[in-house]
Amino acid sequence: MFVIADNIQITRYRVEMAVKERNPEPIKQLAAQCREAGAQAIDINTGPLSRQGEEIMQFMVEAVQEACDLPVCLDTVNAKAMEAGLRAAKGPRPIINGISMQPEKLEGILPLAQNYDADLICFLLKPDGHVPKDADSRLALAVELTGILDEAGISRDRVVFDPLAVPLMWDDGGRQAVEVVETVRLLPEVLGFDARVMVGLSNLTTGRPPGPQRQLVEQTYLAMLGGAGLTWVLMNIFNPDTIATARAVGVLGSGGIFSWHF
Amino acid sequence: MFVIADNIQITRYRVEMAVKERNPEPIKQLAAQCREAGAQAIDINTGPLSRQGEEIMQFMVEAVQEACDLPVCLDTVNAKAMEAGLRAAKGPRPIINGISMQPEKLEGILPLAQNYDADLICFLLKPDGHVPKDADSRLALAVELTGILDEAGISRDRVVFDPLAVPLMWDDGGRQAVEVVETVRLLPEVLGFDARVMVGLSNLTTGRPPGPQRQLVEQTYLAMLGGAGLTWVLMNIFNPDTIATARAVGVLGSGGIFSWHF
Repeated sequence: MFVIADNIQITRYRVEMAVKERNPEPIKQLAAQCREAGAQAIDINTGPLSRQGEEIMQFMVEAVQEACDLPVCLDTVNAKAMEAGLRAAKGPRPIINGISMQPEKLEGILPLAQNYDADLICFLLKPDGHVPKDADSRLALAVELTGILDEAGISRDRVVFDPLAVPLMWDDGGRQAVEVVETVRLLPEVLGFDARVMVGLSNLTTGRPPGPQRQLVEQTYLAMLGGAGLTWVLMNIFNPDTIATARAVGVLGSGGIFSWHF
Repeated sequence: MFVIADNIQITRYRVEMAVKERNPEPIKQLAAQCREAGAQAIDINTGPLSRQGEEIMQFMVEAVQEACDLPVCLDTVNAKAMEAGLRAAKGPRPIINGISMQPEKLEGILPLAQNYDADLICFLLKPDGHVPKDADSRLALAVELTGILDEAGISRDRVVFDPLAVPLMWDDGGRQAVEVVETVRLLPEVLGFDARVMVGLSNLTTGRPPGPQRQLVEQTYLAMLGGAGLTWVLMNIFNPDTIATARAVGVLGSGGIFSWHF
């Protein structure tokens, strides 16, 4: 399983301060720690409301790249900030996080996916930005989005679908958790190609204080998703137990000669 | 998820001695501990070579039932011992563990399933007693066995399929682990009814010393199976972390209002 660290978010105090002071050191340190902890890519979340989006994204991408040579996952709804990130990305193929059927995404982000060589995370969100209610709606959105991406000339091997795990604390959180597993399972079959699928794991336990129960739910759900065919996960990389689960799922799901070294 | 304790095995010294001395106390104590730890049924494994099979099974069933009112899961290949257990079972519907396409099982155990009201675990073993190599072979055996059980008048809601998880240390253990998850996922669809499926979890890590890695693999695999639709698990009940995973899988897989109380 390919693991992306979600730890570099501007909403975290340490990151916010580093950005405010344009001091790359805390971000470099965090990126190095993410890599050390097992990250295979680093999400850079500049937040939705950032006014100097372009400059901030460029600053953050450069800081991360000074510390490590992992792909950067550019996490912003701001198309200009996204493009600044794509320009600044000098290492392995970056990741656009992301696109959806929302008109502003198709207008702002899709052209960037056409112009830059980047992987592309596709949220299975409805055009109005709402989360679909079940697996069928998610699958229908994936089919529609695949048509749009095909037409736009985006190669299918650059695409990663995100069926959107929602917080369990939502009224329908429990049902949605099941629908997301089902979506992960059915996506490659419904789309007719070996589609990659990602889930943002931290979303699941939003609003829940840290502790063994939250940890257990996170690990259990990750394994359930892994058993259904999940290939990527965006998660808090500083949770070694969940990383261990991601590795164990990778080994148990591979079907190869079993090795206890993971 | 319905959890059966696999801890009452005659191959364990404490149980062997209790049986040898016909002293029910250690078995009663163990059964009470299993219940306390979260068991919903108690497997009673009298071993394959027991000469006084009938008497031993009766003794063990009575001891367990003195200590708790859980269903007993009668685990023997000896048809006479199985019948003695069925006769001795006075509590909730017992479980026959089990039957398969092996001729001796169809001749010895199937008639008992017809004559006693018991749940019936069906191993997806080949007629020659070997483990099938993949999911397709397992599914084909399940279809064939269902035909035999239908003809014998065994109601489908009494049946529980066991696709046989094999030790990961086997040469093809890694591949088999994937095939078993696939079998769990496909069984209800292939059979066309809401078939219950069980896995014996301890088998997976056979030959591996206890420790955090074994624990992680057990929990991860249980969650993968749970995500694929596993409904029953036979396991070491004195492993609280795995019990917690079984409960978390149960809640995460239920699709109901999510509750953190599990």
